[in-house]
Amino acid sequence: MNTVKDIAGYIKEGGSFLIATHINPEGDAIGSAVALSMALEALGKKNIVYDKDGVPGIYGFMPGSERIISSLEGIDTKSLCLIILDCNDLERAGLEGMSFGRTAVIDHHATERDFGQIRWIEPEAPACGLMVYRLIKELGVKVTKEMAVNLYTAIAVDTGTFRHGNTTSAALEAAAELVGAGAEPGQVAEDLYATWSEGRFKLFCRTLGTLEITDGVAVMTITSEMMHDTGASPDDVENFVSYPRTIKDLKVSALLRQVDADSWKVSLRSKKDFNVAAVAESFGGGGHRNAAGFKIRGNLKTAKEMLLERLNGQG
Amino acid sequence: MNTVKDIAGYIKEGGSFLIATHINPEGDAIGSAVALSMALEALGKKNIVYDKDGVPGIYGFMPGSERIISSLEGIDTKSLCLIILDCNDLERAGLEGMSFGRTAVIDHHATERDFGQIRWIEPEAPACGLMVYRLIKELGVKVTKEMAVNLYTAIAVDTGTFRHGNTTSAALEAAAELVGAGAEPGQVAEDLYATWSEGRFKLFCRTLGTLEITDGVAVMTITSEMMHDTGASPDDVENFVSYPRTIKDLKVSALLRQVDADSWKVSLRSKKDFNVAAVAESFGGGGHRNAAGFKIRGNLKTAKEMLLERLNGQG
Repeated sequence: MNTVKDIAGYIKEGGSFLIATHINPEGDAIGSAVALSMALEALGKKNIVYDKDGVPGIYGFMPGSERIISSLEGIDTKSLCLIILDCNDLERAGLEGMSFGRTAVIDHHATERDFGQIRWIEPEAPACGLMVYRLIKELGVKVTKEMAVNLYTAIAVDTGTFRHGNTTSAALEAAAELVGAGAEPGQVAEDLYATWSEGRFKLFCRTLGTLEITDGVAVMTITSEMMHDTGASPDDVENFVSYPRTIKDLKVSALLRQVDADSWKVSLRSKKDFNVAAVAESFGGGGHRNAAGFKIRGNLKTAKEMLLERLNGQG
Repeated sequence: MNTVKDIAGYIKEGGSFLIATHINPEGDAIGSAVALSMALEALGKKNIVYDKDGVPGIYGFMPGSERIISSLEGIDTKSLCLIILDCNDLERAGLEGMSFGRTAVIDHHATERDFGQIRWIEPEAPACGLMVYRLIKELGVKVTKEMAVNLYTAIAVDTGTFRHGNTTSAALEAAAELVGAGAEPGQVAEDLYATWSEGRFKLFCRTLGTLEITDGVAVMTITSEMMHDTGASPDDVENFVSYPRTIKDLKVSALLRQVDADSWKVSLRSKKDFNVAAVAESFGGGGHRNAAGFKIRGNLKTAKEMLLERLNGQG
C-alpha cells in the first residue's frame, strides 16, 4: 500500500491528469475531485475532472463544480495520468475498458481489488476529502477559499456534519483549518440542508403522516399519487427513511416507495447490530448492515406484511 | 472587562465556590457548569453546582449532571465565591436577593448589565463551553473524558453541531481536542438527537401534517387533542418550528400550540434579515431577530389570520 508521499510524487512527476470519481457522486466525491483539480492547476499541471453522472443539482453550490465533465468523447486518455477518487476500480469510476498512461487511487473504502499503480487507501479516514486535504498540504499548495469550501463540504457530507460515529479528531482539526482558510460552516450547512423545494417538504410531511410503528419497526409509504400531488421527484425522497431513527428504541425504519401499479422500492435503515442487509438480500436486494434496499412486487398491504414478517424473523 | 486570566486568578484565590447557571438550562449551560465543577474539584476546591430548574431529562446523559442541585435551602451562601455561567445577572441565575462572598461572571451573551466583581464576557464566543474549556486549560487542569463529553456537548448544542453561522475555527479546534480527550461525536449526536419517544415522533408527524405555506410563511399548529392523543409533553415540541426552515425560499416558520380552550403559544423562526422579534413584540412577546415568541388569545382561525397579517406587514 502507498502513502500520501507516493501520491505527491506521482503528481509532481506527471504532466497531464485525468481526475475521476464514482458514478452517482455525493459531496465527498465532488469536493475531493474539484479541490484536487484546483491544487493541480496551482502546480501548473493540466487536468480534466470527470464524473460519468455529472454533478447533481444539490451540489451545484460547490465552487468549481462546473469544471466536472461527464463525457470523455474525443479525449485521448492513453497519455493521461489517472487519479481515481473515493472509489477504487475503473467500473465504479465510469471508465471501464479505457486505457491510461499511469494510474493511481485515493480512497477510504476497504477493498479487495488491486487497481492502480499507486494505491493510497485508508479505510479509517472518515472522508476522501480529508485525504485530499492532507495531499494538498503535502504538495505545498496554498489552500484557497474555493478549495476550503469543497474540502469542508466533502468532510461535512461524509460525517453528517460531524454527527456520525466516523467523526475523528483529525476530521474536526481539518475542518477548523479549512474554516481558517475561508470555509463558512453556516453557509455550507444551509447549502446542504436548507434548500428543499416546497414540494419536497410537503412530500416529507405527507410521508411522515403514513408512519406506523410495530415492535420497534417504523414503516412509511410514498404512493405515486403523493409524488404527483406534491410535484416532488424520486431524488427528493433521499434520506426520508432516516428520520424515524430519532426514536430512542427503534430497531428498523422502512420506506416503501411506489414505482408502478404493483411494485415498490423498499429502503431499510437500522440501528446498532440489526442487519438489514440480510433482509434485503432475502428479497434479492443488498446493502450494508445498517442501510439496505430491494424491490418488491405486490399490493401495498401484502408487501408490508411480507417485509414485517422477514424483519421479525431477523430481529 | 476581565479576561480568562482574571477568572483563573479568582478561582486560585477562592476556597469554596457556588457555580450557578441560568433557569431553563440547555446543554451549553449544563456542560459548562459540570465541567467547571470537575475542574475545581481537581484543584481541591470545594464547590456546589446549582440550577434552579434542575437538569431536563434529555440532558441526563451528560456525565456528572447529577451533581447539579436545584435548591440552596440550608446553605449559607455568604461565604461562597459565586461563578455564574452562560448568563450575567442573579435573576437569570435563579439567585435573586441572595448574598455571596465574591462574585464572577463567565458569559457569551452581549449585555448592558454590570453584575459581578470579575466579568469575563465574550459575545463572539459561540458557546460558554468553549470559554470554560479555555479556562480549564488556563488553570492547568487535565481534561478528563467526563469533562470532554460535557464541553463537547456544550459546544455542539450551541452551534447546532457545527451547522450554525456562529461556528468558528476555534470551536472546531476545541472539538478536535475534546475528541482527543475522549468525547465521542457519534455518541453525543445520538444522545442529543436520537432519543425521542414514540409519542414525540408521532406528534412531530402530526404537526408536520398541519403545514400550510403562504407567501413564504409556513404555519403549523398543535392542538390540545394532538398532545393528548400522542401522550407527548410541552417539552417535546422544542425545535419543531425549525424544520420548515429547510425549505429554500422560506421567510418565516410559525408554530401555534394550544395552551387552553382559546389561547395559543406562538413560536416564530425566520431566515436572514426577517425580524420576527418585532412581530412578537407587537403581540406583547419578545425574542431575537430570527427566533421569537408570544401568546395570543382567540380561536385558531382568528389567531392565524392576525399573525399572517402582522407578518406580511413586517416582511
